[in-house]
Formats: sequence, C-alpha cells, structure tokens
Amino acid sequence: MSAPKLPVAVIGATGIAGQQVLAALEDHPHFEIAALAASERSAGKSFEEAITEPESGIRRWYVSGTGPPAKVLGLTVEDARRLKLDGVGLVFAAIESEAARELEPLYAARAPTISTARPHRTEPDVPLLIPGVNLEHLELLAEQRKRRKWDGFLVTLPNCTATGLAVTLKALDERFGVEALVVTTMQGISGAGRDLAALDIVENIIPYIAREEERVELETRKILGRLSGGKVVDHPLKVSATCTRAGVLAGHTEAVSAALTKPASSAEVAETFERFGTGFTALGLPSSPKRMITVHHDPNRPQPRLDRDADGGMTTSVGRIRPDPVMPNGVRYLLVTHNARMGAGKGAVLAAEYLKHAGYLG
Amino acid sequence: MSAPKLPVAVIGATGIAGQQVLAALEDHPHFEIAALAASERSAGKSFEEAITEPESGIRRWYVSGTGPPAKVLGLTVEDARRLKLDGVGLVFAAIESEAARELEPLYAARAPTISTARPHRTEPDVPLLIPGVNLEHLELLAEQRKRRKWDGFLVTLPNCTATGLAVTLKALDERFGVEALVVTTMQGISGAGRDLAALDIVENIIPYIAREEERVELETRKILGRLSGGKVVDHPLKVSATCTRAGVLAGHTEAVSAALTKPASSAEVAETFERFGTGFTALGLPSSPKRMITVHHDPNRPQPRLDRDADGGMTTSVGRIRPDPVMPNGVRYLLVTHNARMGAGKGAVLAAEYLKHAGYLG
Amino acid sequence: MSAPKLPVAVIGATGIAGQQVLAALEDHPHFEIAALAASERSAGKSFEEAITEPESGIRRWYVSGTGPPAKVLGLTVEDARRLKLDGVGLVFAAIESEAARELEPLYAARAPTISTARPHRTEPDVPLLIPGVNLEHLELLAEQRKRRKWDGFLVTLPNCTATGLAVTLKALDERFGVEALVVTTMQGISGAGRDLAALDIVENIIPYIAREEERVELETRKILGRLSGGKVVDHPLKVSATCTRAGVLAGHTEAVSAALTKPASSAEVAETFERFGTGFTALGLPSSPKRMITVHHDPNRPQPRLDRDADGGMTTSVGRIRPDPVMPNGVRYLLVTHNARMGAGKGAVLAAEYLKHAGYLG
Amino acid sequence: MSAPKLPVAVIGATGIAGQQVLAALEDHPHFEIAALAASERSAGKSFEEAITEPESGIRRWYVSGTGPPAKVLGLTVEDARRLKLDGVGLVFAAIESEAARELEPLYAARAPTISTARPHRTEPDVPLLIPGVNLEHLELLAEQRKRRKWDGFLVTLPNCTATGLAVTLKALDERFGVEALVVTTMQGISGAGRDLAALDIVENIIPYIAREEERVELETRKILGRLSGGKVVDHPLKVSATCTRAGVLAGHTEAVSAALTKPASSAEVAETFERFGTGFTALGLPSSPKRMITVHHDPNRPQPRLDRDADGGMTTSVGRIRPDPVMPNGVRYLLVTHNARMGAGKGAVLAAEYLKHAGYLG
Repeated sequence: MSAPKLPVAVIGATGIAGQQVLAALEDHPHFEIAALAASERSAGKSFEEAITEPESGIRRWYVSGTGPPAKVLGLTVEDARRLKLDGVGLVFAAIESEAARELEPLYAARAPTISTARPHRTEPDVPLLIPGVNLEHLELLAEQRKRRKWDGFLVTLPNCTATGLAVTLKALDERFGVEALVVTTMQGISGAGRDLAALDIVENIIPYIAREEERVELETRKILGRLSGGKVVDHPLKVSATCTRAGVLAGHTEAVSAALTKPASSAEVAETFERFGTGFTALGLPSSPKRMITVHHDPNRPQPRLDRDADGGMTTSVGRIRPDPVMPNGVRYLLVTHNARMGAGKGAVLAAEYLKHAGYLG
Repeated sequence: MSAPKLPVAVIGATGIAGQQVLAALEDHPHFEIAALAASERSAGKSFEEAITEPESGIRRWYVSGTGPPAKVLGLTVEDARRLKLDGVGLVFAAIESEAARELEPLYAARAPTISTARPHRTEPDVPLLIPGVNLEHLELLAEQRKRRKWDGFLVTLPNCTATGLAVTLKALDERFGVEALVVTTMQGISGAGRDLAALDIVENIIPYIAREEERVELETRKILGRLSGGKVVDHPLKVSATCTRAGVLAGHTEAVSAALTKPASSAEVAETFERFGTGFTALGLPSSPKRMITVHHDPNRPQPRLDRDADGGMTTSVGRIRPDPVMPNGVRYLLVTHNARMGAGKGAVLAAEYLKHAGYLG
Repeated sequence: MSAPKLPVAVIGATGIAGQQVLAALEDHPHFEIAALAASERSAGKSFEEAITEPESGIRRWYVSGTGPPAKVLGLTVEDARRLKLDGVGLVFAAIESEAARELEPLYAARAPTISTARPHRTEPDVPLLIPGVNLEHLELLAEQRKRRKWDGFLVTLPNCTATGLAVTLKALDERFGVEALVVTTMQGISGAGRDLAALDIVENIIPYIAREEERVELETRKILGRLSGGKVVDHPLKVSATCTRAGVLAGHTEAVSAALTKPASSAEVAETFERFGTGFTALGLPSSPKRMITVHHDPNRPQPRLDRDADGGMTTSVGRIRPDPVMPNGVRYLLVTHNARMGAGKGAVLAAEYLKHAGYLG
Repeated sequence: MSAPKLPVAVIGATGIAGQQVLAALEDHPHFEIAALAASERSAGKSFEEAITEPESGIRRWYVSGTGPPAKVLGLTVEDARRLKLDGVGLVFAAIESEAARELEPLYAARAPTISTARPHRTEPDVPLLIPGVNLEHLELLAEQRKRRKWDGFLVTLPNCTATGLAVTLKALDERFGVEALVVTTMQGISGAGRDLAALDIVENIIPYIAREEERVELETRKILGRLSGGKVVDHPLKVSATCTRAGVLAGHTEAVSAALTKPASSAEVAETFERFGTGFTALGLPSSPKRMITVHHDPNRPQPRLDRDADGGMTTSVGRIRPDPVMPNGVRYLLVTHNARMGAGKGAVLAAEYLKHAGYLG
C-alpha cells in the first residue's frame, strides 16, 4: 500500500507561477492539492470560473502543452488573506511581490512554505534554494524557525534567470573556483508574464528588464555562498549581467564569460558539467532531471525552442564551451534554462520533493 | 548646372547585398548606375526578369520599405566574369566570397572598387573602411596601387557585426583607450540572407554563426589599427565575441563590456559617443548620418525594431551606458546597428561618397 | 503668404490611436495642434511626462518608424472631461468607447469632431466616413446639426478591418453590384493595442476577436449604404466575416470571396480597382494616397510587412484576383490595409483634410 | 510472447517528411525499421553522419520536441534508387515529387508502399487515404494490384492542408450533405520545409502557396468520393480555397464556410463532429487519436500553438461553430490540424497500423 499523499495548498493559483505549480503537481505521487487560493476577486469561485472571462468564455491558462488538471477545475478558490491551513502540510506561495512580503510570514508561521516570490530571498536566514546546488543551505531552517518562532518555515526559489546560471557556476566553482563573470541574457516572454505587450516584443529585442540584473548579481552570490554562524555568507565573485528580452516564448538563453581561479580546458569544463549533481539526480525524485547539466557538442545548440523542454524542462543545457581570451583563466559558454519549469513552479515542486525526502515535511 | 554623375557598376546586383547598393543609389546626386552584373545564370536578362521566378511570377527583392528602383528594372544584367568596365568610374562589388576572391582584383586593376565581401578584408594593404572611423587608412591606397600595379584600387567594408561595434570602440579608444571587451551579439535575420530557414529561427535563438566571432575579433583590431610603414598594424585590444542569431528581421543588437585604459564615468562615455565623428558628419555627404552615434537615455532603448532605421539606418544607437563591475575601468552598454544599411550597401555608398569628396575618384 | 493653420485638439493623445493622430499631424500644412487631452491621470503633465514611466524612465510611444513630434513633447495635457475648446476649430477624438459615448457629444456640440471610436458609428445621422468612398454621406451633417442643436458636428471613422474591405467593395459595387461576401481576416497586433499579451500571440493565431465580426458586418453595410430622407439606408449585401489575429505587427490581411450581381472577369476587376477613387485622389490632399487601391500581379503579394506602408499606409493593396468557383458571379482576392494609418489616425486626418477642402471647417 | 515486428523501410529518411516517419516509428509496437534510404549523396553514411554537416558539426533534425531515435543513428543510409527490399514488409516513401513519380511504382511492385508524396494521389486506382475517413477506398487495392501486376501496392496520403479539412467535411457530409465551401487557410512554416526563408515569413503573411489551392480542391473531392466500378468517383462539392502562409511553426488553421444540403444547427454540427469516427478510434491503434475531432467551446480556440499537439497531433481541433449568413444552410467554423503529425509522417504510420489490422500486410 502506498503512503498517503501530503495535502498541499497552492497560493496564487490563478496566476502564471501558480498554474505552473498546479501543472507540476498533476498526478504527483507524493502531494495532493488540498486548497487553492488567490486574490479576493477570485475567492469563492471554482477554479474553472476563476480563470474564465465571464463575457467571452475565454479561459486563461498559461502552461503550454497541457490544459488545467481536471481535478483542479472544480476546486473552490479561497481568499489568500483568509486562508486557513488546517490539515495542509505544505504551502506553495506563487504570488506577487507585495502580497508575498505580507502573507508568506503568516503562512510560514503555520506550515512549511516554498515561495517563488522575491521579497524574502535575500534575508540571511532564508534559504535561496536550487535543488542539487545548495541543499546544505537548508540547515538555516532550524535557526530560522527558532529565531522567528515559526511552526513552519520559509524556503525561497531564485529568480529564473539566476537559476540556470547558478547551476553551471556551482559546477565550475566546486572544481576550479569562479572569480568573476560577464553574462548577457536573452530571456523568454513567459518570464514577464502577461504584462509584456505583443506590440513591444514581436520582431524585437528589449535591452532592459527592470531590477533583473541586480537580482542576478545578488542572488548568484547568495546561492553560491557558504554557511557560517547560522547564515549565508555571499560568495565573493563579481558579476556583470546584461538582461534582455527576446521574442522567444519560454527558455532563457545566457552567454557566459567566466574567470576561473584555476585554468581549465574546454574538455575539463564539459566533463565537470556532465558530472555535476549526480548525487542529487541519483535520488530519482519525481520531478528531478536525469542530469543537472546537459552538454551539447553540436555548435548550433543549445537553442531555447529545441532544448528548453529537455529532461522535463529541469536540466540546464550548455553548449559552445570554449576558452575566453579576455577573462583570466577564461571560459565561455551558452546555456538554456527553462524559466517556467526548473526556474519556477516545477523547481518549487522539486524542492518540495527533496524537503520530503530529507524529512523536513512532517 | 550640376556636375555630371559618375557612372558606376554594381556587381552581384540580384543578391541581397547588391540590391541594398541599388536601393542606396536610387536618385543619388553623384552616382548613376551604368552597368549591372551577376552570375552567368542572370546574364542577358533584364534586371526585372532576373529577379522574377519564371513559373510563379514571384519577384525576389529583399530591401524592406521599397521596391526595386524603376530605372533599374529595364537594365540588362551582364555576366560578372565578362564585364567590361568601359566608362565605369567605380565598381560596387557585392558578391559571394568565392567569386570575390577571384573577381575583385580583376575589377580593381581597372577601376576603383568597393567591396562588401570578405576575402580581401584582412590583406595589409587593403583598407577595411568605416566612413567616419578610420578614413586615414585610405592612405594605404597609394602603396596598394603601386605594389599591385592597379589602375584602380580596392577598398573593403567590414562585416556588419564589426561595423557598429567598431564605431563605438573607436570613440572610446580615442579618449580613454580600449584594452579588452566581451561582446554578445543578437543578430538580425537579414544578415544571414536567404539561407536562413524560417524553421530554424522562428521563436528561437541560434547560439552560433559560422566564422562570425573570428571575423569580429580580427576585423575590429584592424579597423582600430594604426598605419605604419604603408600597412595597418592591428590594435592590441583583446576581444571575446559570442555571436547569436535572433528572430529579428534586421538590426544587430550588441551587449558590450569594455575595459578601458583610463577610468570613465557613464556621463563621460555618453558625451564621448555624442561628440564622436562630428568632423565627418559635418561634411554632409548624401548618405551620411547626422550623428555617428545616437545616445539613448530611456533604459528601454535601443531596440532593433525601433532604432535600426534611425538617421537613415546609418547611425549607431547606444543605450544603457553604465559601469561594468568586472572589467578594469569597465563600462557596459548596448548598441543597435543596421546590418543592411550602415553595415552593408548603404555603407558602401557612403564610402564612395567620401572617396569622391576626397578626390579618389577620377 | 500661406493661410494660417487651423488649431485642432487631440483627445486621447497618450493612447495608441491618439498618438497616431499626432504623428499624422506632424508638420501638417493645414492643421496645428492647439490642445492635447487625456484621462485625469495625465492631466497637468507635459506630454513627455505623461508618456514616460516615472520610475524606469521608459517612454510609451507606439507609432512605428518615428518618435513623438518634438513640438508636442512640451505641450500640457488637459483633462478630457474639462477641456475648453476656445479657439479650437476641430477635435480629433481618439478615446476609449465608454469615454467616447459620453464626451463626443459634448465636443460636437461646440466644434467639428472626428472620432475613431465605436459608440456613435451606427447612429443613422452620423456619417461613418471613408474618404474617397462615401463622402456623400457628409450630407447627413446638416440634418445632424439641426436635429441635435450642435454648433459643431460628429463624423466617425470605421473599424480598421472594415475600412480596407469597404474600399474594395465600393469599387466592385459601383460597377458590378455586390450581393454577398465571405471574408477571413488575419489582423495585425497593433489593432489590439497594448492589451494583447505577447504570450498569447507569438508563434500563434487567435481565432477570435471580440465583437469584431459583428462590426465588420454592420459597418460595411452602412458605409456602402445610400442616403435617403436624411439618413443612411444600409446596403443589403450579406456578409460572413471570420476575424483572426495573426503575429504581424501592423496591417490587416483579408481574404475575400464575393458574389457579384453581374459577372466580371479578373481583368475587369483589376481594372475597376485601379480606376477607383481617382476623382478623390486627384484632389491631392496632404495625407491622400496616390491610388485608393494598388493592384499587385505578383501572386506573392500583397504581404502585410511589405505592403502596409505603401503610399503612406493609405492605399489598399490587392492581389490574387481570380474567379471564385463557389459564389455566384464569384470573384476572390486578398487585400492588405494599414490598420493604424488609413484605418485609424491618419485616416482621421485625411477626413479632416477633406472636410476643410469641402468647406465644413469654419 | 509478443508477435515479431514487421520490418519496414523508410525512404527519404534524411528529409523532413522522412524524419517525421522515423519519429512516429520510435519504439513502435508493430513495426521496426529495417532499412533507411535517401538520395545518392547520403548513401553509405550512417544516419548520424548523413544528417550532420561535416564542417560545422551542425545536425539537421527537424522533428520538434525530440531528437533522432537512438536506434536509427547508427543505421546505414542506402541509395533510394538501388534499394533492395529483401525481407521488408512495408515501405514508407517520404520523398520529393520527382523521385516519387519514378521510384514509388518500383517499390509498390515489390512491397506494400505508403507514400506522402503528390504524384500518384490523383490516379483513380490509388487510394488517397485518411484513416478514419475513407478506409473503404482500400478496396481499390485488389484492382490496383491486378491491373498493375504488382506484388505490393501503393497507398497515398493527402496534402496536409486537405487532411484536417476532409476530416470535418466527411463528418458533415455523412449527416447533412456538403454542397460547397469557402476555406481560407493560415498554414504553418513546417509545411513548407526548409525552403521557406526566414526573411520572407517573419512578422508577415504570404498570400500564396504554389499549387496548394488546386490540390486542396482536387484532393478533398477525391477523399470524399465514393467507389464505383473499381475506382473513385469524386464528390461533386464545389471548393473555393485561399491558402496563405503564417508565421506559425506548425499547425494549419483553416476558416471554413460550408453550404449544407440539409439545415443544421450549431449544436447539431458540434455533436456530429464529436461523434465522428468513433468506430475507428475504438480500434485503439497505437498512433490513433482518442477522438477524430475535438470540439472547443471557448471562442478563443483552437489556436495552432496550443492545440496542434492535442491527442498526439492526430485529432482535428474545431471551434467557433456558428451559422454562416451567406452560404445556403450555412455553417462556419475554424479548425487546427497538425500538418506534420496527422497530415504527414504520423498519419502514414497510422495508415500502416490500419493496413496491418485489416490484414493487408503479409
């Protein structure tokens, strides 16, 4: 007989990030959706009503390649501000920044909470987690619960742009040390949600994404940081990020030039990437990629349209590994990461799977 | 009474580069098209016939925003290998690499020749010219003609990706010195010509353009080089280029991180860009931009779709100037340059206008 | 000495439709912008401030190929609800439906008003005008002013999708009679304004545009209607419209199958299109196209990207004229019309030019 | 113990259509790939070599969402003109028209052959087959083999644009009779293969596809035809098709206005579509859709990007069913069909599955 599934709540269920969590939870072996919540406007409606425009009958569902899970359509959406968490063993908070700042501590006081939002990412006792990269940061949780007097806890996931980048940097840092990097991103539309007007991005590139570069710089250093005295000490590497938006639906492409502490040949870098994270992937968690990093030798790859969905959208695809003539001990490569899978809802579900595996959930 | 116009020949007239020259020559005050040439397949046909598919009646004209010049439609296309240059005062050679290697010296032996092709760009006695940037390299021509016993001469234009980059680097180098740079490009489709299949680039980014990065690195150093002993000595700056193709029709977007010899504030860099090339633009040549570099303060600019056609497609649009935390005395910016205007046919016509102005043409 | 220019007001100046009017009025020989108005939120700001996001500095200007007219940047935006029209000889109302319903009668009571909005289009004493197509409908204005006791008057422009269609139908109807038509549209993004999310339309087609098909059907019949007893009697033709949105920035492409009263060969149809409206175009109004309809014989044309800007975006480009085997006396063709030029702000300015020419303005 | 798999040959394996067959055969329960063939240029190479550009290492694989099947990479590609068919029980011919005309009869003389190419589609004794639509046309094969003295036989699949259309028309014809239709298509890029240049279609619509409209008109009538005297008598319905290319990667969207023999309400049409083909889908063939037609009630659907992959790309998605005011007993709807799944290689594999089920293969 299989173990009973853990009841979970999904907050922000009608938004893009929340829908990605719902899709990642469809037919999940360990979790079952016990509660949905969203803003007051949706409260009291069925999920199906809440995502359907009343006049036209148009349904707002944003996860490509699938419709809303059938089981979810009939669930009643609750008001995120009034949500009781009775019987809920885990909260996925996929809400806007302002609401997250206020509501996440309320959830975390009562139940384990995984957030895809920004406000608490940089707090020193809150793990900024990428499964397979910095799981040791979960040691912060004991201190966090004690200091904040929470029954639950709060784990945050990084910005989707930082995620794929940090996966590759961690692999390099472990073996060669990373001193500095220049990264230019070409980010997919879905990362901007529905706010990005077609009129702005079709047949175009937008050279600026508000606050994105700062986040990439800050979050990368925290993810790669080490624990000391119950908090994370940021990694000292220097980061220069230029973040642009491209006319690609999903998948962030990033061109990286990195300075290493020790010299590394392109073959050594490729091998390091391929070996990275095998301890974690060997756990075989349901949403886990088979490889944390997939290395391409065809110079035409990775491409966001062809490679974003590789390994369930959970691997970071890397190619064009070659020396960088400008950076000290320099190496260059491009990567593609799926901003809406590993970099969002499905990454949150993978984090939950690890938390369960490691005994953090009940 | 106005001076008679100089008769010019356009070689490769049916291809994309050649058509851009034709468009740039429409109603030109100083030049008139006296001869068209292309491959043997088109020879003997009118230009209109040569660009029209016989069965379907579909016409192959590649310059956006305009049709073929009416005067050109009825001209007879000659065989580029058999072209007589009687009475022709200037040749625009806009042909494929292999043909250029063989034919351009034959043209240059008889007439001044401006080439948009690659093969002779790196020869030490052949100027690799960007009008307004390195016009002093034309001093090579005297030596070139003498050594090669040519009645004419050969001037080449750079790769379209190097063009906009070199314009900005020259401005920086004059005032602050440039030591090194990391550049990531997001290049427009028209730079690839008709070979790029829609199936490959729609809703996608291709992380590799064959031989492009090497050219950007080589050509940038030559354009910024100094004359010494009748040849160009390459500039010693180090260049790390990553060249990608984006789903943008025209306009190359480039994210640059540069290390300078002397520190420069963002305001000083902006001011340096705005002042650059005013001696050249003051000549008021017909195809000249009003400004070599247009600086944007709106962080959302430059965008290729909005800015590629600025100033007739001849200015380099720059924005997001800010310090680079990784490069020594580092500065970062993005630029947009029109690969098919300044970076191709219209740049060739501007070069011709300067050659005429400076007395190099008859 | 040239005549003094007529002072005009542009309402809805910060929106897409209003900006198109502003662009069409730049350096206009007969009109000068005397007042700008928009919603309360923009009131009191300079136009430049009103279109610039305060935090990021991003400027919201939607007309492709040009920036905001320099003269307009410093003008103060007034509140559309409190606008005095002292000294204003003409109002361009380019506002949302709800506001238009309320405010346009207030403007029309005081000054000649041209509206691009929907609410008053179907009122029997309000002309639904396409310059060059149904100018005789202006005879309604005398009756309108009398009945409504207005000092000014109200003229409306049709939906952008109906515009190009009605131009071609009017040409056919005059000579052959039009009984019925089936039309499928593939409409450009700019017709939807900024509400259309990139996530919905990139690499996609949306098969539905709310209320668009009904408008095309209604408005076409009114535009082609005849005057009788001081009002417009709709044309009896039957219209079946299917309106879709395509991933094209601007330009509506429409595939038309029409049943005619009298048989017509494809050559006769082409000739009829080419001759249409020459009486109007001969007036040489500043924003007028040279031809109302431009006929293509290349089967690959018209294409929205290549042909939308033809003749200043004011001509309707038609191609692939051929018999229709299903419709009685059937003819098929495709057309491309620029939804944001002839079908919007520039069409409104052309209407104003005709009103001035015909003595309706002061 | 499971039955041994039938050895099959795939001709044209390096092309787009052939690769789609290979993808549809991956891990197939009934068929195994015994031979690959292509043009002389690829002969003797492994499949992996044959699809890899020698200089750059770029691999040409065109099926989205998957790489080449691992088992196929090492197979040797044979010359399609010299292919022995020893031991091969079925040939998939996915080759260019000219080669198909010559080679398909040679294959069919020796083995059952399913072709995706055009040349033999309109021959009266060759079935033009859509599984689930006109399987009774397979009765032609007995006559075909006798008359042509073939040991095998030849079955062809329709043009991808005709496929989805014919599925819906057959459903309507069975219950209401179809007299005539006007259809406008917006076809995906992959239907054009690699010949379609990005420069032509990005941010554009092309109003013409050579020979497509004639094929849709001819093939639709044959598919819906009835058997009489050992050949197919075309259905007498009249078809007016306008075929355009849109900037969508895959999936053909078609707007249909049909005249029926008997009146039908929108609800009856929807119900008819939903019930269509249940006898066939109940067979549960491995590549079969669960429903031949999927009906959408959300007016915003079907969309090619969201619906082309529904039911394995094998269902025809229909929406916006409503009366047509112009056609007699008129009904309107839009459909999306996956040109590269049901309309190509995977449709061929489904046809093969039925042939096997019905005892036509060995």
